[in-house]
Amino acid sequence: MIQTILLKNRPIGTPKLSDFEFKETDKDLTIQDGELLLETAYVSVDPYLRGRMSDAKSYIPSFELNKPIQCGIVAKVIASKNKNFSSGDFVTGMLLWQTKQVSTGEGLLKVDDSKAPLSAYLGVLGMTGLTAYLGLNEIGKPKAGETLVVSGAAGAVGSVVGQIGKILGLTVIGIAGTDEKVNLLKTKFGFDAGINYNTSKDISEDIAKAAPNGVDIYFDNVGGPISDAILFNINRFARLVICGAISVYNATETPKSLCVQPFLVKNSALMQGFIVSNYSEKFPEAMSHLSQWLAQEKLTYSETVVHGFEKIPEAFIALFEGKNKGKMIVKL
Amino acid sequence: MIQTILLKNRPIGTPKLSDFEFKETDKDLTIQDGELLLETAYVSVDPYLRGRMSDAKSYIPSFELNKPIQCGIVAKVIASKNKNFSSGDFVTGMLLWQTKQVSTGEGLLKVDDSKAPLSAYLGVLGMTGLTAYLGLNEIGKPKAGETLVVSGAAGAVGSVVGQIGKILGLTVIGIAGTDEKVNLLKTKFGFDAGINYNTSKDISEDIAKAAPNGVDIYFDNVGGPISDAILFNINRFARLVICGAISVYNATETPKSLCVQPFLVKNSALMQGFIVSNYSEKFPEAMSHLSQWLAQEKLTYSETVVHGFEKIPEAFIALFEGKNKGKMIVKL
Repeated sequence: MIQTILLKNRPIGTPKLSDFEFKETDKDLTIQDGELLLETAYVSVDPYLRGRMSDAKSYIPSFELNKPIQCGIVAKVIASKNKNFSSGDFVTGMLLWQTKQVSTGEGLLKVDDSKAPLSAYLGVLGMTGLTAYLGLNEIGKPKAGETLVVSGAAGAVGSVVGQIGKILGLTVIGIAGTDEKVNLLKTKFGFDAGINYNTSKDISEDIAKAAPNGVDIYFDNVGGPISDAILFNINRFARLVICGAISVYNATETPKSLCVQPFLVKNSALMQGFIVSNYSEKFPEAMSHLSQWLAQEKLTYSETVVHGFEKIPEAFIALFEGKNKGKMIVKL
Repeated sequence: MIQTILLKNRPIGTPKLSDFEFKETDKDLTIQDGELLLETAYVSVDPYLRGRMSDAKSYIPSFELNKPIQCGIVAKVIASKNKNFSSGDFVTGMLLWQTKQVSTGEGLLKVDDSKAPLSAYLGVLGMTGLTAYLGLNEIGKPKAGETLVVSGAAGAVGSVVGQIGKILGLTVIGIAGTDEKVNLLKTKFGFDAGINYNTSKDISEDIAKAAPNGVDIYFDNVGGPISDAILFNINRFARLVICGAISVYNATETPKSLCVQPFLVKNSALMQGFIVSNYSEKFPEAMSHLSQWLAQEKLTYSETVVHGFEKIPEAFIALFEGKNKGKMIVKL
């Protein structure tokens, strides 16, 4: 039996379970020459998928209604008629929310479970790690001694950004939504300071206290009021890496926030949207650093693992409630 | 008799005449070795001066209360004990709102009234032209065939930006506040299209019509709702040059506008604050292009000239009412 999850409705506001539909089929999958049969092992659920569920014009096509959703997956090759892959191999790539599927192998990368746990290839050694490394380096252009603030700091990307910041000699301040997360930032990920935005009386003031020399780089995963608060603390020539805006993904009207232009002019500051796929020529360089740091235990990561294919929509929705610590993974 | 204009109060909201104070003195100015005596000929009034009148931290120090205001001026040397300058020379530089003054010559540039009218050295051959050229090139990074939108398009900087855009092979759309200005954009400055933001029913829609291929570069002089409307029309990898935000300079509370982050992420777009003084090493290159284009009549400019030293505060305040077409100049 093969299970698939289809996009049933384009979500309005926060996605609901009823926006997804489960379909089952007993039909066997067969492979042609050059193809592989894959069994899904780990599924990545990521905030950016929310964008593809809407039909607004964006950098990647919208998901089609009544078609399976596609995302980062680690799968096991269970049959192969492709000389590049053998039965028993594990691969990662953009695949479907489906228990088994056929692939031509295009875009798939073999992964080695002796080097790192398989789920890491969806996180610190996958898009998450690449996003953290390349967003910070390519837009943030960090120089040792500078101050970096990361929002969504206990999340999959944010926790890696902060650690890379420390490796590169920055002062790193993280913003997260619970005391437990803020504590993790400092004890597990080596951040210099953490701010709980839910209990802070004045986020801008708390940033000013934690960053007495001002903020040189802001790695933004959230948008909204937290990002507004940063603007009062940026230094001349600050770089604001706009990686995500989870706080507004579910907004049903285009949200308002502080007018950023005067802050950017006053500080000759830069704000740039980051999409990891624009930097694919730098993936090998990034991967080599990330794997090395992971092997040297300079880099660690958190995962929230949910078990069972049928939990995928729930795990996805939980991202918007901040229920994950680090990378949210569904294990089949 | 020497007249000076002092900053009496830090303006709240739009500056008022009562924020300025005139002072007269009969005391003669004398010069020491190395100094010059200058007689002010043309005074530039610019929106950015509003920033220096407030005491908020910024890229240049605030003006001090009860001290003369400083700005771009063309003055005549009426006595010189400095070997680099002779009586009768005209110079430009940052000088005081004062009819006569003493200078060491530091930071002053000799200007040649046989090459261009003296007031042009405060406009198209001064900070205005440098701002237009360097903002467009250094942040906008134009490529022939792209589409450029300019706000404050009939203003001193905007009208030059648009013309440089045309010289570089761009499609250029200007946004201005009266039909007369919009008409000027097309007939005098060679813009491809113009939008009157005061009569437009939907600025975003009008931009979409004028820019069927989307917007690659936005040169922003105004901020506020006009800049919001641009966001719906930007292309992938768009560059937004934030040169000024005149619409919000007089705001007494930090104004709200559209949350820009999702637009920047979706389009991998860049937004960067531009301050001309950061690019001083490129001034000679820029000046050589600007003077050449002016001599070739590829570049033209508008001036609104107000007569009389005592009119300086009025001319400055009029900027915020859009009363100027092109560069606002006070001639003594």
